[in-house]
Amino acid sequence: MIGIFDSGLGGFTVVRQIIKQLPEAGIIYFGDTARTPYGNKGYEIIEGFAQEDSRFLIDQGADIIVIACNTASAVAYPGLKEKFSSRPIFEVISPAVKAAVEKTKNKRIGVIGTRATINSGMYEKLIKAKDKEIQVISQSAPLLVPLVEENWLKRPETKKILKKYLLPLKQKQVDTLILGCTHYPFLKKIIKEKMGKNVELIDSASEVVKTIKKYLEDNPNIFSKIKSQKHQFYVSDLTPQAQSLVSKWFDNKVKLEYYNLN
Amino acid sequence: MIGIFDSGLGGFTVVRQIIKQLPEAGIIYFGDTARTPYGNKGYEIIEGFAQEDSRFLIDQGADIIVIACNTASAVAYPGLKEKFSSRPIFEVISPAVKAAVEKTKNKRIGVIGTRATINSGMYEKLIKAKDKEIQVISQSAPLLVPLVEENWLKRPETKKILKKYLLPLKQKQVDTLILGCTHYPFLKKIIKEKMGKNVELIDSASEVVKTIKKYLEDNPNIFSKIKSQKHQFYVSDLTPQAQSLVSKWFDNKVKLEYYNLN
Repeated sequence: MIGIFDSGLGGFTVVRQIIKQLPEAGIIYFGDTARTPYGNKGYEIIEGFAQEDSRFLIDQGADIIVIACNTASAVAYPGLKEKFSSRPIFEVISPAVKAAVEKTKNKRIGVIGTRATINSGMYEKLIKAKDKEIQVISQSAPLLVPLVEENWLKRPETKKILKKYLLPLKQKQVDTLILGCTHYPFLKKIIKEKMGKNVELIDSASEVVKTIKKYLEDNPNIFSKIKSQKHQFYVSDLTPQAQSLVSKWFDNKVKLEYYNLN
Repeated sequence: MIGIFDSGLGGFTVVRQIIKQLPEAGIIYFGDTARTPYGNKGYEIIEGFAQEDSRFLIDQGADIIVIACNTASAVAYPGLKEKFSSRPIFEVISPAVKAAVEKTKNKRIGVIGTRATINSGMYEKLIKAKDKEIQVISQSAPLLVPLVEENWLKRPETKKILKKYLLPLKQKQVDTLILGCTHYPFLKKIIKEKMGKNVELIDSASEVVKTIKKYLEDNPNIFSKIKSQKHQFYVSDLTPQAQSLVSKWFDNKVKLEYYNLN
């Protein structure tokens, strides 16, 4: 089984990509909706939460772990790798960085993410490690997660807020923009509109699954383990709003189950 | 000591009122910033969190408990009252209801709050219990908490979102509007602008402290116990953003301390 965790429901963009790119894989998802969001919280708190989330997935039989949350990827990946060293762990930042560095022509890459993701400096560090001439323009965009969770995807209020966040990136003429939060693909269309059609958008959900797919093809023994027809979707708080949002995204095919973290 | 808890930092509007109305009282505050916000979460989750928050305050020596969070007041008050029956517990809803019922002339009261608060139906129930002829128009406004926590108090984006939330209340011509979340007093000025000067705004933070003051005057033995020069402010996640927000609100006079709930 592929174990995926996220601070809430945003990680379902990764689930969608797995179903698309790796239809034979079994999925076990954990969304920490009781303590969501992670993006404005402190590093130690996020690291503690991420370890509990991973422990749950491993106890449920996950063979590999995917951190479907940019914030947890930016903050908690090294600690998780050390603590759960018996299993491959994937984070969403490196695959997006790789794709962005390959795509940019004018060497100006923009990144949007939560406050914790942007403040971690992880995107900038990894991009510079690949090509130190690339200029990285980062912008934290803390209101986008609540807007997506309200399903305000096409509202004028959302467009206005996006315009504000994207302005500095447009002014610096980035030609590539990393959507550094698994919630943001839901806003892809408006972001594209605001940035202009010549700006390439990098979706970390799609990129991480490409990386996982390649890894599984290179490691057939693990690939055979994770094959399953069974998917399970757990959340630490199960509200009608959460179920209704996920039902909308997956045409009523996903049923959430409650798991009490305490 | 007066113990106050909130899902995050919104409860500081109650702290401000205590300092103003009861300057001799000692305060111990707990803001559950690690798990904030509560307002979109399920009832059982909120009830569990509220019990942990209260337990912490009592262990630290609180003589009375104030639930400075409308969501927790709406959902967790009966359970807390039963569990911690040795101490007086105050919630923020009844005092606001009392004030609103006294103020309304046209018998149309509006309420704005988080999704959990509005869905609980508690405001409507308590208002109708006082006067069943009063029409209650409720509106959940889930984006206001993140906007306040971003300190976007006067931004055009905030005004646009507020306009949207307040429209149904204006259309129904309420003459009294309950600010059913401790974060909302920060937006009082724009709300007043949008609703018009003839609409009376009821601030639950101010009303609950009036009720507590009256209670203490009637119970001098408890009043003498809570007198103290010492204030303590704890949060379950201490970020620079949180400290900076509170410093701005209190002219650098409040220093947050970290308490690990786990």
